Amino acid sequence: MGPVRIESASNDRIKLLKKLTNSSAERRERGAFVLDGARLCRDAVRSGRVPLEVYMTPEFVSRMPDAAGEIARGCPSVFEIAGKAAAAVSDTDAPQGVFAVFPLAGDKMTLDKSSFTDKINKRGVYIALENVQNPGNLGATARTAEALGADGMVICGGCDVYSPKAQRAAMGSLLRLPVFLADGLPAALRLFEEAGMTTLASVPDASALPVTKLGKREGLVCAVGNEGAGLSEEAVNACRLRVTVPMAGRAESLNAAAAAAILMWELLKPEGEPDE
Amino acid sequence: MGPVRIESASNDRIKLLKKLTNSSAERRERGAFVLDGARLCRDAVRSGRVPLEVYMTPEFVSRMPDAAGEIARGCPSVFEIAGKAAAAVSDTDAPQGVFAVFPLAGDKMTLDKSSFTDKINKRGVYIALENVQNPGNLGATARTAEALGADGMVICGGCDVYSPKAQRAAMGSLLRLPVFLADGLPAALRLFEEAGMTTLASVPDASALPVTKLGKREGLVCAVGNEGAGLSEEAVNACRLRVTVPMAGRAESLNAAAAAAILMWELLKPEGEPDE
Repeated sequence: MGPVRIESASNDRIKLLKKLTNSSAERRERGAFVLDGARLCRDAVRSGRVPLEVYMTPEFVSRMPDAAGEIARGCPSVFEIAGKAAAAVSDTDAPQGVFAVFPLAGDKMTLDKSSFTDKINKRGVYIALENVQNPGNLGATARTAEALGADGMVICGGCDVYSPKAQRAAMGSLLRLPVFLADGLPAALRLFEEAGMTTLASVPDASALPVTKLGKREGLVCAVGNEGAGLSEEAVNACRLRVTVPMAGRAESLNAAAAAAILMWELLKPEGEPDE
Repeated sequence: MGPVRIESASNDRIKLLKKLTNSSAERRERGAFVLDGARLCRDAVRSGRVPLEVYMTPEFVSRMPDAAGEIARGCPSVFEIAGKAAAAVSDTDAPQGVFAVFPLAGDKMTLDKSSFTDKINKRGVYIALENVQNPGNLGATARTAEALGADGMVICGGCDVYSPKAQRAAMGSLLRLPVFLADGLPAALRLFEEAGMTTLASVPDASALPVTKLGKREGLVCAVGNEGAGLSEEAVNACRLRVTVPMAGRAESLNAAAAAAILMWELLKPEGEPDE
Protein backbone atom coordinates (compact mmCIF):
# COMPACT_ATOMS: atom_id res chain seq x y z
CA MET A 1 0.00 0.00 0.00
CA GLY A 2 1.45 3.35 -1.05
CA PRO A 3 1.27 6.62 0.83
CA VAL A 4 -2.00 8.54 1.24
CA ARG A 5 -2.52 10.84 -1.73
CA ILE A 6 -3.54 14.52 -1.27
CA GLU A 7 -4.75 16.27 -4.42
CA SER A 8 -6.16 19.55 -3.24
CA ALA A 9 -4.25 22.65 -2.16
CA SER A 10 -7.16 23.36 0.22
CA ASN A 11 -6.80 20.04 2.05
CA ASP A 12 -6.58 20.59 5.81
CA ARG A 13 -3.12 19.02 6.11
CA ILE A 14 -1.79 21.23 3.31
CA LYS A 15 -3.27 24.29 4.97
CA LEU A 16 -1.56 23.37 8.25
CA LEU A 17 1.72 22.72 6.45
CA LYS A 18 1.51 26.14 4.83
CA LYS A 19 0.79 27.79 8.18
CA LEU A 20 3.77 26.03 9.72
CA THR A 21 5.93 27.27 6.83
CA ASN A 22 4.85 30.88 7.15
CA SER A 23 4.18 31.47 10.84
CA SER A 24 6.69 31.54 13.62
CA ALA A 25 3.83 31.54 16.19
CA GLU A 26 2.42 28.36 14.60
CA ARG A 27 5.85 26.71 14.83
CA ARG A 28 6.15 27.53 18.53
CA GLU A 29 2.60 26.38 19.24
CA ARG A 30 2.98 23.05 17.44
CA GLY A 31 6.63 22.55 18.45
CA ALA A 32 7.55 21.74 14.86
CA PHE A 33 8.98 23.31 11.69
CA VAL A 34 9.04 22.56 7.96
CA LEU A 35 12.00 22.08 5.67
CA ASP A 36 11.46 22.55 1.92
CA GLY A 37 13.65 20.85 -0.67
CA ALA A 38 15.75 17.71 -0.97
CA ARG A 39 19.02 19.13 0.29
CA LEU A 40 17.68 20.61 3.53
CA CYS A 41 15.47 17.59 4.29
CA ARG A 42 18.45 15.27 3.76
CA ASP A 43 20.72 17.49 5.86
CA ALA A 44 18.21 17.24 8.70
CA VAL A 45 17.86 13.46 8.42
CA ARG A 46 21.63 13.05 8.25
CA SER A 47 22.04 15.15 11.38
CA GLY A 48 19.93 12.54 13.20
CA ARG A 49 16.46 14.10 13.05
CA VAL A 50 13.45 11.92 12.23
CA PRO A 51 10.60 13.69 10.41
CA LEU A 52 7.12 13.69 11.94
CA GLU A 53 5.56 13.97 8.48
CA VAL A 54 6.87 13.88 4.90
CA TYR A 55 5.06 15.26 1.84
CA MET A 56 6.36 14.45 -1.65
CA THR A 57 5.10 14.84 -5.21
CA PRO A 58 5.26 11.71 -7.43
CA GLU A 59 7.50 13.73 -9.79
CA PHE A 60 10.01 14.26 -6.97
CA VAL A 61 9.94 10.58 -6.00
CA SER A 62 10.62 9.45 -9.56
CA ARG A 63 13.29 12.12 -10.16
CA MET A 64 15.19 11.57 -6.90
CA PRO A 65 14.22 8.12 -5.60
CA ASP A 66 17.27 7.77 -3.33
CA ALA A 67 16.67 11.12 -1.64
CA ALA A 68 12.96 10.33 -1.29
CA GLY A 69 13.77 7.02 0.38
CA GLU A 70 16.33 8.56 2.71
CA ILE A 71 14.00 11.37 3.79
CA ALA A 72 10.94 9.16 4.34
CA ARG A 73 12.77 6.34 6.13
CA GLY A 74 11.43 5.79 9.64
CA CYS A 75 8.73 8.44 9.21
CA PRO A 76 5.26 7.20 10.25
CA SER A 77 3.31 9.70 8.10
CA VAL A 78 4.27 9.94 4.44
CA PHE A 79 1.90 11.67 2.02
CA GLU A 80 1.89 11.97 -1.73
CA ILE A 81 0.86 15.46 -2.83
CA ALA A 82 -0.02 17.01 -6.17
CA GLY A 83 2.23 19.68 -7.72
CA LYS A 84 -0.34 22.40 -7.07
CA ALA A 85 -0.44 21.54 -3.38
CA ALA A 86 3.38 21.75 -3.30
CA ALA A 87 3.26 25.18 -4.98
CA ALA A 88 0.72 26.36 -2.40
CA VAL A 89 2.96 25.39 0.51
CA SER A 90 6.38 26.55 -0.70
CA ASP A 91 7.62 30.11 -0.37
CA THR A 92 9.96 29.53 -3.35
CA ASP A 93 9.06 29.98 -7.01
CA ALA A 94 10.05 26.48 -8.09
CA PRO A 95 9.60 24.01 -5.21
CA GLN A 96 11.27 20.63 -5.65
CA GLY A 97 8.21 18.84 -4.33
CA VAL A 98 9.43 17.57 -0.97
CA PHE A 99 8.61 18.90 2.49
CA ALA A 100 9.37 17.37 5.87
CA VAL A 101 8.05 18.39 9.28
CA PHE A 102 10.51 18.04 12.16
CA PRO A 103 10.13 18.60 15.90
CA LEU A 104 11.77 21.76 17.27
CA ALA A 105 14.99 20.92 19.06
CA GLY A 106 13.60 22.39 22.29
CA ASP A 107 15.74 21.99 25.39
CA LYS A 108 18.80 21.09 23.33
CA MET A 109 18.90 24.73 22.32
CA THR A 110 18.70 26.36 25.73
CA LEU A 111 21.73 27.26 27.79
CA ASP A 112 21.70 27.44 31.56
CA LYS A 113 24.30 27.22 34.26
CA SER A 114 23.72 23.54 35.01
CA SER A 115 23.93 22.34 31.41
CA PHE A 116 26.54 24.83 30.14
CA THR A 117 29.53 22.52 30.52
CA ASP A 118 27.77 19.67 28.73
CA LYS A 119 26.87 21.83 25.77
CA ILE A 120 29.75 24.27 25.33
CA ASN A 121 33.36 23.53 24.40
CA LYS A 122 35.24 25.87 26.73
CA ARG A 123 38.20 26.06 24.36
CA GLY A 124 35.92 26.75 21.39
CA VAL A 125 34.96 29.87 19.45
CA TYR A 126 31.29 30.91 19.39
CA ILE A 127 29.41 33.67 17.63
CA ALA A 128 26.43 35.34 19.34
CA LEU A 129 23.83 37.34 17.40
CA GLU A 130 21.54 39.85 19.08
CA ASN A 131 18.24 40.74 17.47
CA VAL A 132 19.29 40.12 13.85
CA GLN A 133 16.15 40.86 11.81
CA ASN A 134 16.99 39.59 8.35
CA PRO A 135 16.70 35.78 8.02
CA GLY A 136 19.15 35.91 5.09
CA ASN A 137 21.79 37.47 7.36
CA LEU A 138 21.09 34.95 10.12
CA GLY A 139 21.36 31.99 7.74
CA ALA A 140 24.44 33.34 5.96
CA THR A 141 26.17 33.87 9.31
CA ALA A 142 25.46 30.27 10.32
CA ARG A 143 26.84 29.09 6.98
CA THR A 144 30.01 31.14 7.43
CA ALA A 145 30.37 29.96 11.04
CA GLU A 146 30.27 26.34 9.92
CA ALA A 147 32.60 26.94 6.97
CA LEU A 148 35.21 28.59 9.17
CA GLY A 149 34.91 26.00 11.92
CA ALA A 150 33.11 27.87 14.71
CA ASP A 151 31.93 25.67 17.58
CA GLY A 152 28.40 27.07 17.65
CA MET A 153 26.07 30.05 17.72
CA VAL A 154 24.03 31.83 20.35
CA ILE A 155 20.95 33.59 18.96
CA CYS A 156 19.01 36.14 20.96
CA GLY A 157 15.83 37.73 19.60
CA GLY A 158 15.39 38.80 16.00
CA CYS A 159 14.06 36.54 13.29
CA ASP A 160 13.07 32.91 13.75
CA VAL A 161 15.87 30.37 13.24
CA TYR A 162 13.25 28.00 11.81
CA SER A 163 11.92 30.36 9.13
CA PRO A 164 12.26 28.97 5.60
CA LYS A 165 14.42 31.94 4.51
CA ALA A 166 16.89 31.48 7.36
CA GLN A 167 17.12 27.73 6.80
CA ARG A 168 17.60 28.21 3.05
CA ALA A 169 20.33 30.82 3.47
CA ALA A 170 22.06 28.55 5.99
CA MET A 171 22.17 25.63 3.52
CA GLY A 172 21.85 23.17 6.39
CA SER A 173 24.34 24.87 8.72
CA LEU A 174 21.61 25.72 11.24
CA LEU A 175 20.86 21.97 11.41
CA ARG A 176 24.47 20.88 11.91
CA LEU A 177 25.99 23.61 14.10
CA PRO A 178 25.18 23.68 17.81
CA VAL A 179 22.70 26.58 18.02
CA PHE A 180 21.51 27.99 21.33
CA LEU A 181 18.58 30.34 21.82
CA ALA A 182 18.92 32.96 24.56
CA ASP A 183 16.11 35.05 26.00
CA GLY A 184 18.56 37.78 26.87
CA LEU A 185 22.06 38.00 25.47
CA PRO A 186 23.65 39.64 28.57
CA ALA A 187 22.63 36.69 30.77
CA ALA A 188 23.97 34.20 28.21
CA LEU A 189 27.25 36.12 27.97
CA ARG A 190 27.60 35.97 31.75
CA LEU A 191 27.41 32.16 31.57
CA PHE A 192 30.40 32.20 29.20
CA GLU A 193 32.31 34.56 31.51
CA GLU A 194 31.54 32.47 34.58
CA ALA A 195 32.91 29.45 32.73
CA GLY A 196 36.21 31.28 32.27
CA MET A 197 35.72 32.11 28.59
CA THR A 198 36.34 35.56 27.07
CA THR A 199 33.36 37.60 25.92
CA LEU A 200 33.84 40.04 23.04
CA ALA A 201 31.43 42.79 21.99
CA SER A 202 31.78 43.80 18.35
CA VAL A 203 31.36 47.58 18.00
CA PRO A 204 31.87 49.94 15.05
CA ASP A 205 34.21 52.13 17.07
CA ALA A 206 37.79 52.89 16.03
CA SER A 207 38.82 53.22 19.71
CA ALA A 208 37.94 49.58 20.48
CA LEU A 209 40.55 46.82 20.30
CA PRO A 210 41.23 45.82 16.68
CA VAL A 211 40.26 42.14 16.38
CA THR A 212 43.65 41.58 14.74
CA LYS A 213 45.35 42.51 18.02
CA LEU A 214 43.35 40.24 20.28
CA GLY A 215 46.08 37.60 20.58
CA LYS A 216 43.68 34.87 21.67
CA ARG A 217 42.18 32.22 19.48
CA GLU A 218 40.21 29.98 21.85
CA GLY A 219 37.71 30.06 24.66
CA LEU A 220 35.85 32.97 23.07
CA VAL A 221 32.38 34.18 22.30
CA CYS A 222 32.00 37.17 19.99
CA ALA A 223 28.70 39.10 20.10
CA VAL A 224 27.42 40.92 17.01
CA GLY A 225 24.41 43.21 16.99
CA ASN A 226 21.66 43.81 14.50
CA GLU A 227 21.62 45.55 11.15
CA GLY A 228 20.49 48.96 12.31
CA ALA A 229 21.23 49.40 15.98
CA GLY A 230 24.25 47.20 16.67
CA LEU A 231 24.55 45.52 20.08
CA SER A 232 22.45 46.72 22.99
CA GLU A 233 24.25 48.68 25.68
CA GLU A 234 23.47 45.85 28.12
CA ALA A 235 25.15 43.28 25.87
CA VAL A 236 28.23 45.49 25.38
CA ASN A 237 28.46 46.01 29.12
CA ALA A 238 28.20 42.28 29.77
CA CYS A 239 31.34 41.65 27.69
CA ARG A 240 34.91 41.72 28.92
CA LEU A 241 36.33 43.36 25.77
CA ARG A 242 35.08 45.64 23.00
CA VAL A 243 36.57 44.62 19.65
CA THR A 244 36.28 46.15 16.19
CA VAL A 245 37.12 45.46 12.56
CA PRO A 246 39.68 48.18 11.70
CA MET A 247 38.69 49.71 8.38
CA ALA A 248 40.17 51.99 5.79
CA GLY A 249 36.83 52.86 4.20
CA ARG A 250 33.40 53.87 5.49
CA ALA A 251 33.07 52.06 8.78
CA GLU A 252 29.31 52.56 9.13
CA SER A 253 28.91 50.58 5.94
CA LEU A 254 29.78 47.07 7.14
CA ASN A 255 26.63 44.98 7.58
CA ALA A 256 26.02 42.43 10.34
CA ALA A 257 26.74 39.32 8.23
CA ALA A 258 29.93 40.79 6.73
CA ALA A 259 31.19 41.99 10.13
CA ALA A 260 30.48 38.55 11.61
CA ALA A 261 32.29 36.87 8.69
CA ILE A 262 35.44 38.97 9.12
CA LEU A 263 35.43 38.63 12.92
CA MET A 264 35.02 34.85 12.76
CA TRP A 265 37.71 34.64 10.10
CA GLU A 266 40.17 36.49 12.33
CA LEU A 267 39.26 34.32 15.32
CA LEU A 268 39.24 31.05 13.41
CA LYS A 269 41.69 31.24 10.53
CA PRO A 270 44.13 28.36 10.44
CA GLU A 271 47.23 28.90 12.58
CA GLY A 272 50.55 29.27 10.85
CA GLU A 273 49.09 31.48 8.14
CA PRO A 274 51.03 34.70 8.58
CA ASP A 275 49.87 37.74 6.65
CA GLU A 276 52.62 37.87 4.10
CA MET B 1 2.72 77.09 -7.81
CA GLY B 2 3.30 73.73 -6.17
CA PRO B 3 4.17 70.45 -7.83
CA VAL B 4 1.64 68.56 -9.99
CA ARG B 5 -0.45 66.27 -7.78
CA ILE B 6 -1.07 62.62 -8.73
CA GLU B 7 -3.85 60.90 -6.77
CA SER B 8 -4.42 57.61 -8.52
CA ALA B 9 -2.26 54.50 -8.42
CA SER B 10 -3.40 53.81 -11.98
CA ASN B 11 -2.07 57.12 -13.32
CA ASP B 12 0.19 56.53 -16.34
CA ARG B 13 3.25 58.06 -14.69
CA ILE B 14 2.81 55.86 -11.64
CA LYS B 15 2.44 52.81 -13.85
CA LEU B 16 5.69 53.69 -15.64
CA LEU B 17 7.45 54.31 -12.35
CA LYS B 18 6.34 50.91 -11.12
CA LYS B 19 7.56 49.23 -14.31
CA LEU B 20 10.91 50.97 -13.98
CA THR B 21 11.13 49.74 -10.38
CA ASN B 22 10.37 46.13 -11.26
CA SER B 23 11.81 45.52 -14.70
CA SER B 24 15.42 45.41 -15.67
CA ALA B 25 14.44 45.44 -19.39
CA GLU B 26 12.43 48.62 -18.83
CA ARG B 27 15.44 50.25 -17.13
CA ARG B 28 17.71 49.41 -20.07
CA GLU B 29 15.15 50.59 -22.59
CA ARG B 30 14.51 53.93 -20.88
CA GLY B 31 18.12 54.39 -19.72
CA ALA B 32 16.94 55.20 -16.21
CA PHE B 33 16.38 53.64 -12.80
CA VAL B 34 14.41 54.39 -9.63
CA LEU B 35 15.64 54.86 -6.08
CA ASP B 36 13.14 54.41 -3.25
CA GLY B 37 13.54 56.11 0.12
CA ALA B 38 15.20 59.23 1.52
CA ARG B 39 18.59 57.76 2.25
CA LEU B 40 19.24 56.28 -1.20
CA CYS B 41 17.83 59.31 -3.03
CA ARG B 42 20.04 61.61 -0.97
CA ASP B 43 23.09 59.37 -1.47
CA ALA B 44 22.56 59.63 -5.24
CA VAL B 45 22.14 63.41 -5.18
CA ARG B 46 25.21 63.78 -2.98
CA SER B 47 27.24 61.66 -5.38
CA GLY B 48 26.52 64.29 -8.05
CA ARG B 49 23.49 62.77 -9.82
CA VAL B 50 20.54 64.98 -10.76
CA PRO B 51 17.14 63.24 -10.81
CA LEU B 52 15.06 63.27 -13.99
CA GLU B 53 11.86 63.00 -11.94
CA VAL B 54 11.01 63.10 -8.24
CA TYR B 55 7.80 61.75 -6.65
CA MET B 56 7.00 62.57 -3.02
CA THR B 57 4.00 62.22 -0.72
CA PRO B 58 2.98 65.36 1.22
CA GLU B 59 3.51 63.33 4.40
CA PHE B 60 7.16 62.74 3.44
CA VAL B 61 7.67 66.43 2.60
CA SER B 62 6.31 67.57 5.93
CA ARG B 63 8.16 64.87 7.89
CA MET B 64 11.55 65.39 6.22
CA PRO B 65 11.49 68.85 4.59
CA ASP B 66 15.29 69.16 4.35
CA ALA B 67 15.67 65.80 2.61
CA ALA B 68 12.76 66.63 0.29
CA GLY B 69 14.38 69.94 -0.67
CA GLU B 70 17.78 68.37 -1.22
CA ILE B 71 16.40 65.57 -3.40
CA ALA B 72 14.15 67.81 -5.53
CA ARG B 73 16.69 70.61 -6.01
CA GLY B 74 17.47 71.16 -9.69
CA CYS B 75 14.98 68.53 -10.82
CA PRO B 76 12.64 69.79 -13.57
CA SER B 77 9.83 67.30 -12.85
CA VAL B 78 8.63 67.06 -9.27
CA PHE B 79 5.31 65.38 -8.52
CA GLU B 80 3.24 65.09 -5.39
CA ILE B 81 1.75 61.62 -5.02
CA ALA B 82 -0.83 60.10 -2.73
CA GLY B 83 0.15 57.44 -0.20
CA LYS B 84 -1.68 54.73 -2.16
CA ALA B 85 0.28 55.58 -5.32
CA ALA B 86 3.51 55.31 -3.29
CA ALA B 87 2.46 51.91 -1.94
CA ALA B 88 1.72 50.74 -5.50
CA VAL B 89 5.22 51.65 -6.71
CA SER B 90 7.42 50.47 -3.83
CA ASP B 91 8.59 46.90 -3.40
CA THR B 92 8.93 47.47 0.35
CA ASP B 93 6.17 47.05 2.93
CA ALA B 94 6.43 50.54 4.37
CA PRO B 95 7.67 53.01 1.73
CA GLN B 96 8.85 56.38 3.02
CA GLY B 97 7.02 58.17 0.22
CA VAL B 98 9.91 59.43 -1.92
CA PHE B 99 11.09 58.06 -5.28
CA ALA B 100 13.59 59.59 -7.69
CA VAL B 101 14.34 58.56 -11.27
CA PHE B 102 17.99 58.88 -12.33
CA PRO B 103 19.70 58.31 -15.67
CA LEU B 104 21.80 55.13 -15.92
CA ALA B 105 25.48 55.93 -15.67
CA GLY B 106 26.07 54.47 -19.16
CA ASP B 107 29.58 54.85 -20.54
CA LYS B 108 31.00 55.72 -17.13
CA MET B 109 30.46 52.08 -16.27
CA THR B 110 32.14 50.43 -19.26
CA LEU B 111 35.81 49.49 -19.32
CA ASP B 112 37.83 49.31 -22.52
CA LYS B 113 41.50 49.50 -23.34
CA SER B 114 41.46 53.18 -24.27
CA SER B 115 39.67 54.40 -21.14
CA PHE B 116 41.15 51.89 -18.66
CA THR B 117 43.89 54.16 -17.35
CA ASP B 118 41.46 57.03 -16.78
CA LYS B 119 39.06 54.89 -14.81
CA ILE B 120 41.22 52.42 -12.88
CA ASN B 121 43.74 53.12 -10.13
CA LYS B 122 46.57 50.76 -11.06
CA ARG B 123 47.74 50.56 -7.45
CA GLY B 124 44.21 49.92 -6.25
CA VAL B 125 42.32 46.81 -5.13
CA TYR B 126 39.19 45.78 -7.07
CA ILE B 127 36.62 43.05 -6.64
CA ALA B 128 35.05 41.40 -9.70
CA LEU B 129 31.80 39.42 -9.49
CA GLU B 130 30.77 36.92 -12.14
CA ASN B 131 27.12 36.08 -12.59
CA VAL B 132 26.03 36.71 -8.98
CA GLN B 133 22.28 36.00 -8.98
CA ASN B 134 21.11 37.28 -5.63
CA PRO B 135 20.72 41.09 -5.51
CA GLY B 136 21.18 40.95 -1.73
CA ASN B 137 24.62 39.35 -2.17
CA LEU B 138 25.57 41.87 -4.88
CA GLY B 139 24.52 44.84 -2.74
CA ALA B 140 26.11 43.47 0.44
CA THR B 141 29.40 42.91 -1.41
CA ALA B 142 29.38 46.51 -2.64
CA ARG B 143 28.72 47.69 0.90
CA THR B 144 31.61 45.61 2.26
CA ALA B 145 33.90 46.78 -0.57
CA GLU B 146 33.24 50.40 0.31
CA ALA B 147 33.57 49.80 4.06
CA LEU B 148 36.94 48.12 3.64
CA GLY B 149 38.22 50.71 1.18
CA ALA B 150 38.20 48.83 -2.16
CA ASP B 151 38.80 51.03 -5.21
CA GLY B 152 35.88 49.67 -7.20
CA MET B 153 33.92 46.71 -8.53
CA VAL B 154 33.62 44.93 -11.84
CA ILE B 155 30.27 43.20 -12.36
CA CYS B 156 29.71 40.67 -15.10
CA GLY B 157 26.29 39.12 -15.70
CA GLY B 158 23.94 38.05 -12.92
CA CYS B 159 21.39 40.34 -11.37
CA ASP B 160 20.83 43.98 -12.28
CA VAL B 161 22.93 46.50 -10.33
CA TYR B 162 19.99 48.89 -10.55
CA SER B 163 17.39 46.56 -9.04
CA PRO B 164 15.75 47.96 -5.90
CA LYS B 165 16.92 44.97 -3.81
CA ALA B 166 20.57 45.39 -4.85
CA GLN B 167 20.49 49.13 -4.25
CA ARG B 168 18.85 48.67 -0.87
CA ALA B 169 21.33 46.03 0.29
CA ALA B 170 24.19 48.28 -0.87
CA MET B 171 22.96 51.21 1.27
CA GLY B 172 24.28 53.66 -1.32
CA SER B 173 27.63 51.94 -1.91
CA LEU B 174 26.71 51.09 -5.52
CA LEU B 175 26.21 54.84 -6.07
CA ARG B 176 29.50 55.89 -4.51
CA LEU B 177 31.94 53.15 -5.52
CA PRO B 178 33.29 53.09 -9.07
CA VAL B 179 31.29 50.20 -10.60
CA PHE B 180 32.09 48.78 -14.04
CA LEU B 181 29.87 46.46 -16.04
CA ALA B 182 31.62 43.82 -18.17
CA ASP B 183 30.02 41.75 -20.92
CA GLY B 184 32.54 39.01 -20.32
CA LEU B 185 34.71 38.75 -17.22
CA PRO B 186 37.72 37.09 -18.97
CA ALA B 187 38.09 40.06 -21.37
CA ALA B 188 37.84 42.53 -18.48
CA LEU B 189 40.43 40.57 -16.49
CA ARG B 190 42.81 40.71 -19.47
CA LEU B 191 42.58 44.53 -19.40
CA PHE B 192 43.78 44.47 -15.80
CA GLU B 193 46.63 42.07 -16.69
CA GLU B 194 47.69 44.19 -19.68
CA ALA B 195 47.84 47.20 -17.37
CA GLY B 196 50.33 45.34 -15.19
CA MET B 197 47.90 44.51 -12.39
CA THR B 198 47.56 41.08 -10.78
CA THR B 199 44.42 39.06 -11.44
CA LEU B 200 43.23 36.62 -8.78
CA ALA B 201 40.62 33.89 -9.21
CA SER B 202 38.92 32.90 -5.98
CA VAL B 203 38.34 29.13 -5.92
CA PRO B 204 37.11 26.77 -3.17
CA ASP B 205 40.18 24.55 -3.59
CA ALA B 206 42.60 23.77 -0.77
CA SER B 207 45.46 23.40 -3.29
CA ALA B 208 45.19 27.05 -4.41
CA LEU B 209 47.32 29.78 -2.83
CA PRO B 210 45.91 30.81 0.59
CA VAL B 211 44.97 34.49 0.29
CA THR B 212 46.92 35.02 3.54
CA LYS B 213 50.14 34.07 1.70
CA LEU B 214 49.70 36.36 -1.28
CA GLY B 215 52.17 38.96 -0.02
CA LYS B 216 50.80 41.72 -2.24
CA ARG B 217 48.37 44.39 -1.22
CA GLU B 218 48.01 46.64 -4.27
CA GLY B 219 47.45 46.57 -8.01
CA LEU B 220 45.01 43.67 -7.69
CA VAL B 221 41.66 42.50 -8.92
CA CYS B 222 40.05 39.51 -7.21
CA ALA B 223 37.33 37.62 -9.11
CA VAL B 224 34.56 35.83 -7.21
CA GLY B 225 32.00 33.55 -8.85
CA ASN B 226 28.34 33.00 -8.25
CA GLU B 227 26.44 31.29 -5.47
CA GLY B 228 26.10 27.86 -7.04
CA ALA B 229 28.71 27.38 -9.72
CA GLY B 230 31.64 29.56 -8.67
CA LEU B 231 33.76 31.23 -11.36
CA SER B 232 33.57 30.04 -14.96
CA GLU B 233 36.54 28.05 -16.23
CA GLU B 234 37.27 30.88 -18.69
CA ALA B 235 37.44 33.44 -15.89
CA VAL B 236 39.74 31.21 -13.80
CA ASN B 237 41.98 30.68 -16.83
CA ALA B 238 42.15 34.41 -17.50
CA CYS B 239 43.65 35.01 -14.04
CA ARG B 240 47.31 34.88 -13.12
CA LEU B 241 46.76 33.27 -9.70
CA ARG B 242 44.20 31.00 -8.07
CA VAL B 243 43.63 32.02 -4.45
CA THR B 244 41.48 30.53 -1.72
CA VAL B 245 40.23 31.21 1.80
CA PRO B 246 41.87 28.49 3.89
CA MET B 247 39.22 26.97 6.13
CA ALA B 248 39.06 24.71 9.13
CA GLY B 249 35.38 23.87 8.65
CA ARG B 250 33.20 22.85 5.70
CA ALA B 251 34.73 24.67 2.75
CA GLU B 252 31.76 24.19 0.42
CA SER B 253 29.71 26.18 2.87
CA LEU B 254 31.14 29.69 2.32
CA ASN B 255 28.74 31.80 0.24
CA ALA B 256 29.76 34.35 -2.39
CA ALA B 257 29.23 37.45 -0.24
CA ALA B 258 31.08 35.96 2.76
CA ALA B 259 33.98 34.75 0.60
CA ALA B 260 34.22 38.18 -1.02
CA ALA B 261 34.16 39.85 2.42
CA ILE B 262 37.01 37.72 3.76
CA LEU B 263 39.09 38.05 0.57
CA MET B 264 38.69 41.84 0.49
CA TRP B 265 39.49 42.03 4.19
CA GLU B 266 42.76 40.14 3.66
CA LEU B 267 43.65 42.33 0.66
CA LEU B 268 42.62 45.62 2.26
CA LYS B 269 43.08 45.40 6.01
CA PRO B 270 45.11 48.25 7.45
CA GLU B 271 48.87 47.69 7.33
CA GLY B 272 50.70 47.31 10.61
CA GLU B 273 47.95 45.14 12.04
CA PRO B 274 49.80 41.90 12.70
CA ASP B 275 47.78 38.85 13.60
CA GLU B 276 48.61 38.65 17.24
